[in-house]
Amino acid sequence: MMHYFTEDASTETVNGRMGDGINPRLAEVMACLVNHLHAFTKEIHLTQTEWDLAVEFLTKTGQICSQERQEFILLSDVLGLSMLVDAINNRRPSGATENTVLGPFHVSDAPVRSMGDDICLDGKGESCLFEGKVLDNHGGPIEGACVDVWSDNADGFYDVQQPGIQPKWNNRGRFFTGKDGRYSFRGIKPTAYPIPNDGPVGKLLAQLGRHPYRPAHMHFLVTAPGFQKLVTHTFVGDDFYIESDAVFGVKKTLIAPYERVMDDSTLWRSPFDFVLTPA
Amino acid sequence: MMHYFTEDASTETVNGRMGDGINPRLAEVMACLVNHLHAFTKEIHLTQTEWDLAVEFLTKTGQICSQERQEFILLSDVLGLSMLVDAINNRRPSGATENTVLGPFHVSDAPVRSMGDDICLDGKGESCLFEGKVLDNHGGPIEGACVDVWSDNADGFYDVQQPGIQPKWNNRGRFFTGKDGRYSFRGIKPTAYPIPNDGPVGKLLAQLGRHPYRPAHMHFLVTAPGFQKLVTHTFVGDDFYIESDAVFGVKKTLIAPYERVMDDSTLWRSPFDFVLTPA
Repeated sequence: MMHYFTEDASTETVNGRMGDGINPRLAEVMACLVNHLHAFTKEIHLTQTEWDLAVEFLTKTGQICSQERQEFILLSDVLGLSMLVDAINNRRPSGATENTVLGPFHVSDAPVRSMGDDICLDGKGESCLFEGKVLDNHGGPIEGACVDVWSDNADGFYDVQQPGIQPKWNNRGRFFTGKDGRYSFRGIKPTAYPIPNDGPVGKLLAQLGRHPYRPAHMHFLVTAPGFQKLVTHTFVGDDFYIESDAVFGVKKTLIAPYERVMDDSTLWRSPFDFVLTPA
Repeated sequence: MMHYFTEDASTETVNGRMGDGINPRLAEVMACLVNHLHAFTKEIHLTQTEWDLAVEFLTKTGQICSQERQEFILLSDVLGLSMLVDAINNRRPSGATENTVLGPFHVSDAPVRSMGDDICLDGKGESCLFEGKVLDNHGGPIEGACVDVWSDNADGFYDVQQPGIQPKWNNRGRFFTGKDGRYSFRGIKPTAYPIPNDGPVGKLLAQLGRHPYRPAHMHFLVTAPGFQKLVTHTFVGDDFYIESDAVFGVKKTLIAPYERVMDDSTLWRSPFDFVLTPA
C-alpha cells in the first residue's frame, strides 16, 4: 500500500485512498477517470501555466451557465463527447435509424397536431413538407408512434431562444401515427446556425481554428410502446457545413432528400422513414 | 479524412477538425485530451445518466467558485492532479528538498521579520521554534534567501479564512538569510484541518469514503537568486492524517522532527534544512 504520493505511483496512491463499501460503479468510474487524467498529464507533460489556464477555463465555463445556457454541455458537444456517449448507449442493428444528440432546445409537451399541419407560425422561411413512415425492423408500420419535431426558424433561432419575438411553439409539434404508420407535417427547410460562441467554448473553438456552425437539420424524437426511443435529426445534404458540424451530430444515414416542389405555397418536400428497434 | 462521426473513429474525427496555423502546443494538448477523454468514456462505457451527473457536478463546481474559493483547484487537489503537475515540473536531483503544492492560502508580500521573531499573533497554540539552514547542493549556506512561511492557527484556520477574527498576517512572515544561511522563527506547532468540504468536491470525497483532512504542516516558499523556487511544507510526522492527506501533499522527506523543549514559553522545536537546486 503506497501512502505517499510519487510521480510513478500517482494513480495507485489516489485510487487506493477510496474507502470500503462505497458505490462500486462510482469506484470503477472514478478509478478509470483518475487513470486517464494522470496518463494525459504525464503524456503531455502538462506545465503549471497550462494547469492554471485549465482551472480558469473550467471556472469560466461553470460561471456562464444559467437556466438558459449550459456551457459544459456545449463543451462536451464540441469535444465529440456527447456524440460518443450517445453512440455507446444506442448501438442498433443495421437498418435501424441511427441516433444523434438531443441538443439543448427540446421542449417537452409540444402541442399535438394533426397530420399535414403547418408548425411554422412566424411566416418566415421556405415551406417544406416532411413525410414518411414509422416502421419496425421488418418494414411493418407502427401505429400510435409519437413523432415529436422541432427546428430553428429561418433566422437560425429556436423559439425558446427568442421568447417574445417568435410565437410560442414556433416550429414545434407532436404527431401520432395511425394504422398506416405515416406522418406528415409542414415546416420550413431548416437553416444552419452557430452554437452560442460568445463564451469560453466559443473562444476555444476559435483558438482551434474551428467554426461554430451546425448544418441545417430537423429534430425528431420518435417514441412508441415496445420500441427503443429514437433521438435523431435529418440533415440537409447540400448544407455548406454538412461535413463540419461543430458538434459532430451528422451521420451519413441521416442525410434526407430535399426535393424542390411547387404545391400551393410549399417549396420543398423531405421524405424520410424511421425504423425503430424493439425495446 | 473522416468527416462524419463514428464510435470507432471518434478521436480522429474530432482531432481532424482542428484548423491549420493554430498554436501547435494547444493542438498537441487538445488532441491528447480528446484521446484520453474518449478512451475513458469507451473503457468505462459511460451511461447517459452518468454523463448528466458529470455535467451537473462540473457546473456546480464552477458556480461555487468566488474570489475566496476555488473549487476546481480543490477538485484537482483531491484527484492528485495538482501534486502530479507539481511533480512533473519539479523533478530534482537526489538530496535537493522536494516540492509540494502551494495551496490556496499563500499571500504575497507578508511582513519581513527578524530572525527569531514570533509570527503567531493571536496567542493561540503551542509555541514552536522553527530553525535550520538554506543550503546549496554542496552543503554551502545560501545568503540572501527569502524564507516565506505561513500556517493555520490553533483552530485550523488561516488568517485569510477569518478576516476580522484573526489578526492580519497571523502566522505569516518572510525571513532573509545572512552569510550563514540560517533561518529561525517562532510559530506554533501546526494543526490538522479539513479542506472546505461543504461543496461538490466535499460531497464527492464523502461518496468515495474519503475524509477531508490535511495533516498538520508549515508552509515554506524559499527563493534565492540563481536557484529554483522551492514550494514546500514540512509535516508533523505523528499526525493522525500523515498517511492520508486529502490532497496527497505529503512526501516522506518532508516530515520534520518536532522535539519537545521548554525554553521560556516555547514548547517545541522543529529543525529543518532546505537544499535548493541551481536554476
